[in-house]
Amino acid sequence: MTERVTLDQLNAMDRAGFVAAIGDVFEYADWVADAAFAGRPFASVTALHSAMIEAVNAAPSDKQLAFIRDHPELGSKVAQTGHLTDESKAEQGSLGLDRLSGEEFRRFETLNAAYREKFGFPFVICVRRHTRDSVLNQFSRRLRNTADNERATALHEISLITQLRLVSKVAGPGAPKTDGRLSTHVLDNVLGKPAVGVKISFFEIGKSAIGLLAEVITNHDGRTDAPLLSGAPLRIGTYELRFHAASYFKARGIAVADPPYLDEVPIRFSIAEPEGHYHVPLLITPWSYSTYRGS
Amino acid sequence: MTERVTLDQLNAMDRAGFVAAIGDVFEYADWVADAAFAGRPFASVTALHSAMIEAVNAAPSDKQLAFIRDHPELGSKVAQTGHLTDESKAEQGSLGLDRLSGEEFRRFETLNAAYREKFGFPFVICVRRHTRDSVLNQFSRRLRNTADNERATALHEISLITQLRLVSKVAGPGAPKTDGRLSTHVLDNVLGKPAVGVKISFFEIGKSAIGLLAEVITNHDGRTDAPLLSGAPLRIGTYELRFHAASYFKARGIAVADPPYLDEVPIRFSIAEPEGHYHVPLLITPWSYSTYRGS
Amino acid sequence: MTERVTLDQLNAMDRAGFVAAIGDVFEYADWVADAAFAGRPFASVTALHSAMIEAVNAAPSDKQLAFIRDHPELGSKVAQTGHLTDESKAEQGSLGLDRLSGEEFRRFETLNAAYREKFGFPFVICVRRHTRDSVLNQFSRRLRNTADNERATALHEISLITQLRLVSKVAGPGAPKTDGRLSTHVLDNVLGKPAVGVKISFFEIGKSAIGLLAEVITNHDGRTDAPLLSGAPLRIGTYELRFHAASYFKARGIAVADPPYLDEVPIRFSIAEPEGHYHVPLLITPWSYSTYRGS
Amino acid sequence: MTERVTLDQLNAMDRAGFVAAIGDVFEYADWVADAAFAGRPFASVTALHSAMIEAVNAAPSDKQLAFIRDHPELGSKVAQTGHLTDESKAEQGSLGLDRLSGEEFRRFETLNAAYREKFGFPFVICVRRHTRDSVLNQFSRRLRNTADNERATALHEISLITQLRLVSKVAGPGAPKTDGRLSTHVLDNVLGKPAVGVKISFFEIGKSAIGLLAEVITNHDGRTDAPLLSGAPLRIGTYELRFHAASYFKARGIAVADPPYLDEVPIRFSIAEPEGHYHVPLLITPWSYSTYRGS
Repeated sequence: MTERVTLDQLNAMDRAGFVAAIGDVFEYADWVADAAFAGRPFASVTALHSAMIEAVNAAPSDKQLAFIRDHPELGSKVAQTGHLTDESKAEQGSLGLDRLSGEEFRRFETLNAAYREKFGFPFVICVRRHTRDSVLNQFSRRLRNTADNERATALHEISLITQLRLVSKVAGPGAPKTDGRLSTHVLDNVLGKPAVGVKISFFEIGKSAIGLLAEVITNHDGRTDAPLLSGAPLRIGTYELRFHAASYFKARGIAVADPPYLDEVPIRFSIAEPEGHYHVPLLITPWSYSTYRGS
Repeated sequence: MTERVTLDQLNAMDRAGFVAAIGDVFEYADWVADAAFAGRPFASVTALHSAMIEAVNAAPSDKQLAFIRDHPELGSKVAQTGHLTDESKAEQGSLGLDRLSGEEFRRFETLNAAYREKFGFPFVICVRRHTRDSVLNQFSRRLRNTADNERATALHEISLITQLRLVSKVAGPGAPKTDGRLSTHVLDNVLGKPAVGVKISFFEIGKSAIGLLAEVITNHDGRTDAPLLSGAPLRIGTYELRFHAASYFKARGIAVADPPYLDEVPIRFSIAEPEGHYHVPLLITPWSYSTYRGS
Repeated sequence: MTERVTLDQLNAMDRAGFVAAIGDVFEYADWVADAAFAGRPFASVTALHSAMIEAVNAAPSDKQLAFIRDHPELGSKVAQTGHLTDESKAEQGSLGLDRLSGEEFRRFETLNAAYREKFGFPFVICVRRHTRDSVLNQFSRRLRNTADNERATALHEISLITQLRLVSKVAGPGAPKTDGRLSTHVLDNVLGKPAVGVKISFFEIGKSAIGLLAEVITNHDGRTDAPLLSGAPLRIGTYELRFHAASYFKARGIAVADPPYLDEVPIRFSIAEPEGHYHVPLLITPWSYSTYRGS
Repeated sequence: MTERVTLDQLNAMDRAGFVAAIGDVFEYADWVADAAFAGRPFASVTALHSAMIEAVNAAPSDKQLAFIRDHPELGSKVAQTGHLTDESKAEQGSLGLDRLSGEEFRRFETLNAAYREKFGFPFVICVRRHTRDSVLNQFSRRLRNTADNERATALHEISLITQLRLVSKVAGPGAPKTDGRLSTHVLDNVLGKPAVGVKISFFEIGKSAIGLLAEVITNHDGRTDAPLLSGAPLRIGTYELRFHAASYFKARGIAVADPPYLDEVPIRFSIAEPEGHYHVPLLITPWSYSTYRGS
C-alpha cells in the first residue's frame, strides 16, 4: 500500500489538492470529489465517503447513467486498449479476470453482452468481495433483475468499491469496516486440551477446481498464529479446511485404527458476509468431531 | 447366488460327492476337502471350515507351499491364459483387477515380480475385503515382512478367502460372520426430529479418483431404507458421505445464508474392519454439525 | 391387568352385555355405551371409542354438563366418601393424589374451589399423562380459560381418559396409540464404541423435590435392556438422567483428572408428548459431551 | 488488598526492615525471612519465594517439625484462643471454617485428632485452593499417607500458602502464577451466532448442599463481561453452570415445546487445577447441546 493521506491533511487542502488526492476513487468522475469538497471538514472517513455517495445520488439521472457506463466490463479486452484505471486493473487482477482462458473469456463476453443489451450499462460488481464462482452467480442472478433494481444495485456496488478505495487512500478515524476475518481452533476432546501441531490445509472450492490457499499448523493454543484470512474483505464463496487429524493423534500417542477412522477431516463452508468474522472450530477425537460457526 | 447345498446334505454325502460339492473352495486343492471328509458330521459351517483349515495346517511344508503357489497373481495376465478359477475371476473382477489400465497393470506387475522374487510364491489376499487402494497398501507393507510372517499371512488370507467361498456354497447353522454393515442417520437439531428427505451421495475415495457408489434419500426416520453397505464384507478403504444439507433446510422452511454456510456436508472416514458395523450419523443445523462412530 | 374382552366378543354381545362390559369406561354414564351399541360391529378399538365420543358430543348440552359434573375432584376428600369409581381411584393414586400432605391438599382445595366457582364443574384431567407438577401447571392455566374453551378442554381430557380405560378393557385391532417411550444410548467417543456398564440414575425433577425413578446399567450396545419408560403414556414433566461417567472411564482404564472434570453428568429434559418417543443419547469423553433428541 | 511493598523497595531494605516487611509470610517463623535476606537482591518475586523455601528446606529436621507444628488446626477452637495469625484467620474464614455447625466441627475435631495422633503435627493445607468438600477429601486421603510422605506434603502445602501470601504483600516482576480462571461462552446453533442475553446461574455443588455463587447474563459476544472466577486460585471442587436456555430461545422467537425439551441446562464439572484456565462453553439448540473443556 502506498502511503496514505490523513483525513486532517485532506481537510486542510484546497479544492484542487482535494480533488487530486481522492478524485480517482470514483472511476473517471472527478466531479464527485469536487462536489464533496463543500462538506469539509469531515469528522471521519465514513462521513467523507457518505458525502461522495450523496454527490452521486444528487446528480441528474443521465449523469449517473453516464457515470455507471464509464465502468469497465469484467474480464473484458478493455484492459488491453488502455481504458482501465489502475484501480480497476488491480481489482480485476485479484480474481484472475485478466488471465481468463478462452472458454471463460467467452462466457464473460456472452454475459457482458446480454447484460449490456438488457440494461444499457456494464455489469459493475465489487470483485474484491467475491470469488470467481460468486461473480458468475451474481452475474446470472442480476441479469434477471428489473432495470430499476439493477441500477440501484450497480450504485450500491460502486459504493462498496469506492469505500475500499477510499480506505486504501485516506487514513483517519471512523473508517468504515471493510475487512473480514476467518479463523479456526482445534480442541482435542480426548485430552481436554487445545490440539497442538495439527496441520490444516485451506482450500477455495470452485465449481470446476480446487485451489490450495494455505497450509498452517496449530500453535500451543490450538489456533493459527494469524487468522486464515484478514485485513481485506472475505470473498463470497465456498472453502474447505482439511484437518490432518490422524497424524496429530499418532504424534500424541493416541490410538487410531488402521487405516484411521478419521484421517483428513474436511470442513466445507461458504462465506456470505465479506465483512463478517467466520470462526470455524473443530472438536475432535479419533472417532468423532463437531464444528459450528463460532465467534 | 446359485442354490447352496445344505450342511445336512453335505454331512450325508459320500466322499466323492462331498469333494465334488466343496472341493473347489480351496484353489486347485481337492485334497483339503478330501482330508476334512473324515471329520463328518459337522455341527456348523464354521466347524466344517475349521476342519478344512486344519487339513491345510497339517499338510507337510512343501505341500503347503505348492498349494500357496497355485494361487493366481493379482491383476495378472493369468486370467487370459485360462489358469484362473471361476471364483478367483469373480473376486478379482469385483475390484476391477481384470480391467487395469496400462500403468496400473505395470504397477501390479512390478509388485508381483518383487514379491515372487522375495517370497517364492504369489501375493495372496482376500480381495473382497479391500478396495484397490487398500490392496496396494497391503502389497507394499507385506513386501517388508519376513518370509515366515508372510507365509503365515498368506495362509490367513486363504482362510478368509475360503470362508467366504464356503459360506456362498453351504447353507447351515453356525456360519462364520463374513459380512459388515454401513449405515447412517440424520437428525435435525433445529426441529429435534429425524431429518426426512435428505439426499446423500456416497463415494469411495481412492488415491487418484473418486467413485460415486450410491445416491440415497433419508426416510421418515432420518435413515436410509436399506444399509448403505451390507450382505458382504466391507472393503477396507476410505469413503465419503456427502449430505445435501442446505437443500434439506430450504425445503423445511428453515433459514440458511446465501450462499448457505453449510451446503454439501462431507463426512470422510475409513473402514478398517470388513466384518464390522459402521454407523455414521450426522446431527445438523444450518450452522453446525457433529458426527461420530455410532452403533 | 385383568383379562380383557376381545372386540369380537363385544361385537357379538347383546345390549345388556355390551353395556355391562364397557359401561364404566365413562364415569357414571352407562348411557354412552348404550348409545354406542347401535354402531356395532366395530372394526377397531379406535372406531368403538369414536362412537362413544360421538354419543357424548350428540348429547344435549345439559346432559353433557351433568356428565362432566359427575367427575371427581382431584385430590379431594371424595375418595373417602365413597363416590370415586375404581378407575378414578387408581388413576389419581398413580400420582399420589390420594396421599397429599396438608399443605398440598389445601392447594388443591383452593384450586378446586376457584375452578368450580368459575366453571360450575370439577377440573377434569387425564392424570396418567401428567406429573404432579404438570397437573398443577394445567390447573393454573386452565383457570384462565373462557367457559366455552374450558368445557371443550374437559371433554377432550375425558376422551383421553376413556381411551386409556377402553384400551385396558378391550383387546382388538386398531387400538389407539396411548403409550410413549423413553430410551437412552451412551457412546464412548474416545474408543469409538458403545459405552458398556455405565450406571444411569433416572429422576423425576419436581418443583420441590427430586424422585429417583430407576437405576440402570448400559448393556453391550451402550443401551438399557428395556426402555426407561414404556407401555403407558409418558407423564408430562421434567426428568433428569445422571450418567456416572468418571467411574465408567476409570473402569476402562481411560485417564480422568482428580477430581474428574466430568463425574456424574446430568441431562435434564422435559417430556411434552405423552405418546411420543424420547430418545436421549449421550456422546461422551472425559472432557466433553453432547446430547440431542434422537429417534 | 493493602498497599504492597515493591520488590525494589525490599531489595533496598536493611535486615530489620526486610524481616518486618515479609517475616509473617511464614507462620510464626521470622527466621525464614531472616535467612533469605542473604540472597538479596532478588530478580523476581518467584526467586524471593524460592529463597525462603530453601531456607525452610535447609533447616534442621526438628526446627522444620517445630515450624510445621506452629500451624493452626483447621476449623479448630484455636481461633477463639487468639493463637491464629491474621492470615490464617482470613484464609480459613474464606471457606467458612470459622463458622462450622456443631456436627461439622466435630468431624473436623475427629480428623484433626486422628491426624495429630498419627503424624504429630497439625493438618496443613492451602485452603484457598480448595472447597470445603475438597478439604475433607484431602484430609481423609492424607491420613492414609506414610509419615515421610505426609511431612513432604505439609511442606509443599506451606509453599503454596506462602506463595499466595508473598504475592499479596510484594509487587514486582516474575510473580508466580497463583490465579486461575473460569469462563464460559454460549453459541446458538440455530442462528449460528453468539447467544446474547442468556441467564446463567453458577453454583458450587457440595456433598450436602448447593450454593449459588453468581448469576450472570451473556453479552453481545455470548460471553460474560468478566470471567466467572479469576484473580485468585480456583478452589478444587465441583461446580454447576445452569443455562436458562428456554427463556433465551423464547425471547429470540425460536420455537420450543411446551414444556420446553430443554429449559435450564445444567453443566456440572470439577476443577482440579487451581491455577488453570477452565473454559466451559455451551453450544445449544432447543433440542441439543454440547459442552467441552475449551481454551
